[in-house]
Amino acid sequence: MAAGLPDLEVRRDRLQADLEAIARFTDPHLPYTRRAFTPQYAEARRWLTERFIEAGLDVRIDAAGNLIGRRGGAGDRVLMLGSHTDTVEAGGRFDGIVGVMGALEVARVLKEAGIELSLPLEVVDFVCEEPTIVNLSPLGSRLMAGDVTAAHIAATETPFGQPLADAIDALGGNAKQVEAARRKLGDIAGYLELHIEQGSVLEREGLAVGVVTTIAAPCRALVALTGAADHAGATAMPDRRDALAGAAELVLAVERIASTPGMVAEGVGTVGWLRVSPNMVNVIPGRVDLTIEVRSTEAEALAVARREIETEIHDIAERRKLEATFDWQHIELPVPLPEHMRNAVAQACDDLAVPYRYLPSRASHDAARLAPIAPAGMVFIRCKDGRSHCPEEWADMDDIVEGTRVLGQALLRVDEMVRGS
Amino acid sequence: MAAGLPDLEVRRDRLQADLEAIARFTDPHLPYTRRAFTPQYAEARRWLTERFIEAGLDVRIDAAGNLIGRRGGAGDRVLMLGSHTDTVEAGGRFDGIVGVMGALEVARVLKEAGIELSLPLEVVDFVCEEPTIVNLSPLGSRLMAGDVTAAHIAATETPFGQPLADAIDALGGNAKQVEAARRKLGDIAGYLELHIEQGSVLEREGLAVGVVTTIAAPCRALVALTGAADHAGATAMPDRRDALAGAAELVLAVERIASTPGMVAEGVGTVGWLRVSPNMVNVIPGRVDLTIEVRSTEAEALAVARREIETEIHDIAERRKLEATFDWQHIELPVPLPEHMRNAVAQACDDLAVPYRYLPSRASHDAARLAPIAPAGMVFIRCKDGRSHCPEEWADMDDIVEGTRVLGQALLRVDEMVRGS
Repeated sequence: MAAGLPDLEVRRDRLQADLEAIARFTDPHLPYTRRAFTPQYAEARRWLTERFIEAGLDVRIDAAGNLIGRRGGAGDRVLMLGSHTDTVEAGGRFDGIVGVMGALEVARVLKEAGIELSLPLEVVDFVCEEPTIVNLSPLGSRLMAGDVTAAHIAATETPFGQPLADAIDALGGNAKQVEAARRKLGDIAGYLELHIEQGSVLEREGLAVGVVTTIAAPCRALVALTGAADHAGATAMPDRRDALAGAAELVLAVERIASTPGMVAEGVGTVGWLRVSPNMVNVIPGRVDLTIEVRSTEAEALAVARREIETEIHDIAERRKLEATFDWQHIELPVPLPEHMRNAVAQACDDLAVPYRYLPSRASHDAARLAPIAPAGMVFIRCKDGRSHCPEEWADMDDIVEGTRVLGQALLRVDEMVRGS
Repeated sequence: MAAGLPDLEVRRDRLQADLEAIARFTDPHLPYTRRAFTPQYAEARRWLTERFIEAGLDVRIDAAGNLIGRRGGAGDRVLMLGSHTDTVEAGGRFDGIVGVMGALEVARVLKEAGIELSLPLEVVDFVCEEPTIVNLSPLGSRLMAGDVTAAHIAATETPFGQPLADAIDALGGNAKQVEAARRKLGDIAGYLELHIEQGSVLEREGLAVGVVTTIAAPCRALVALTGAADHAGATAMPDRRDALAGAAELVLAVERIASTPGMVAEGVGTVGWLRVSPNMVNVIPGRVDLTIEVRSTEAEALAVARREIETEIHDIAERRKLEATFDWQHIELPVPLPEHMRNAVAQACDDLAVPYRYLPSRASHDAARLAPIAPAGMVFIRCKDGRSHCPEEWADMDDIVEGTRVLGQALLRVDEMVRGS
């Protein structure tokens, strides 16, 4: 415990009960599935609102549909803790959820310890972090940062066939005046997010907790390779223009480029989506559409990887007489988290004598989307086998408690900086 | 013209008018599409029935739904010409169709020339040659050969949601007594089929006509590769079990095996159908299902290729820590056409001074399915760029006329053999 900072008593039983309770709000047909804008999501939100109220928080839903619990009075400037409670399909019980539940627990222990921070505290459940709205997610944090506008929303539907504006309104938001959710630069004096690592670095090193240095950026391309959909029996091998064979080379090239040391620093490359046309057993694939995603913590490495991939597409198309089109539909820059926020989290670990290491985040988070308007810090906790976005996603309660303690302590450290500034 | 054989005057205008007329019976939304058991198919059949009657043929529909025009009186033993008028989706105007129209034209010119053969002649439009009923097609010729039974039919639906038995009955067949369509070994004294090559061997050599030696056999496997559907951002490259990367290696291995000289004699290998799960831009593919098809004219080469593919699947799965299942769902043996039927076609070419070459058929045909019960011969004609099963499929009228002349002359040659036997 650092001199001068109070002791926060995180209660494991309460945190565990909350995590178990919210896991029950799931799609009846898919394990641990609570996609944004579904009935299960709305129910979980109602349950969470009650927990916020019990914790003595003033609850409101902003125009974007973010659920916000607040303590410490009025004023534009706040400290903020948050994450998300929505999941992907066949998702998990921890990704995002531990961040919201940990933040709620921190708010409770602050109240119990009678601690007042120098600024009001907001606990935020950001709406639709997962790519349910593919081109706009993470929606709540982007709306808060002013990166998505009412016009984007008006032009979009949910995958469930509802206008996105109606879906936001149904959650208690106000899609027509969604700009009201936007925060000005400086309004959020510090943002902290607790999250499972979604990788296996901490597990391999036997650490419960990590301090995030940089959030990797995804770049996503849509590629179409077009050949000739000829008879699979009658067309001799040298006469073929097989789009799937070309796509296979590209899948392996992306893997190779992402695996080359230094090519994509701390990075990854994935072909996650692929569609074959006409997709019949006895017809040579005439066209393949696929996505390429590369992520890195270094902008330069990402640019090199993108160029390398473009060269591969060009070479494959030329060699196989295919037509190729590609479009980098989404280019994001890596987000290095500010030094003073990394330090606050590291100091919190030292305060509590929790061993830790620095590590990058390969996945993106609400923190990355708030970073342009707010200094953001992240606490990672260990998860099992690096699995996430699947029913097997798992984090031990010991680690969740440890991470929540670090989150609370880091908040006190940030509060100290804000007081001193 | 060979001594002793009459001169058949194939009429180009009539043949062309027929080909143009039947092309109009098409799906209103897809080019040149007349799938079996659709309204367009039924309409084309009614039109074709009138043409058969005009040609002086006695028309009946057998229990299988095959349309049969007959001349030359009663008796179980017949000579037979045929092919099919159904197409694949976005199919073509020639595959199968030239065979039926050519056969009809031969029947007409026999009548005009007053030629009686030693046996009755049947002109057959086989029902559903294309894989509209994936596991039972080519349906009409298999039913005639006794290779598909009433039990198979009772257990099957069309892709249009109709019980197959009802669909056969609607065409005028009799699904309950479908065995009545079966011919005994020896009933068909000789079967001849005219077809487009669906490859580019004849085109490259500047030949209108080819004599088919062997019909290649397709072997089809269904393969499933299972890895782990982890987060595409968070999972480091060495920690991945990416089912699509494994599938990509397999696609290229199939291509390589089929392209190795001698490995698949005159053969081809194709991954035509592939499905990725969960198929999302930011999730590592956890599972890929795909089909592998290899075809060869030599049973031994096919067996070697199958074993080579199995080894590849095993190696890929082991190296990438994937689970693999595979199942050769369909293993067919190549069908060498009998020497005397090849000779009949080759002699017909010589009779008419039409240059030709011998070549195998890489695609399968009704002839292959009749081969177990009837000596079969095939005449190939040149098609454009080897394209088929697509709207670009094309054969010139000059070549169609030449092929039809050879078909008729080959029929006379077979008749001569039957007489002599």
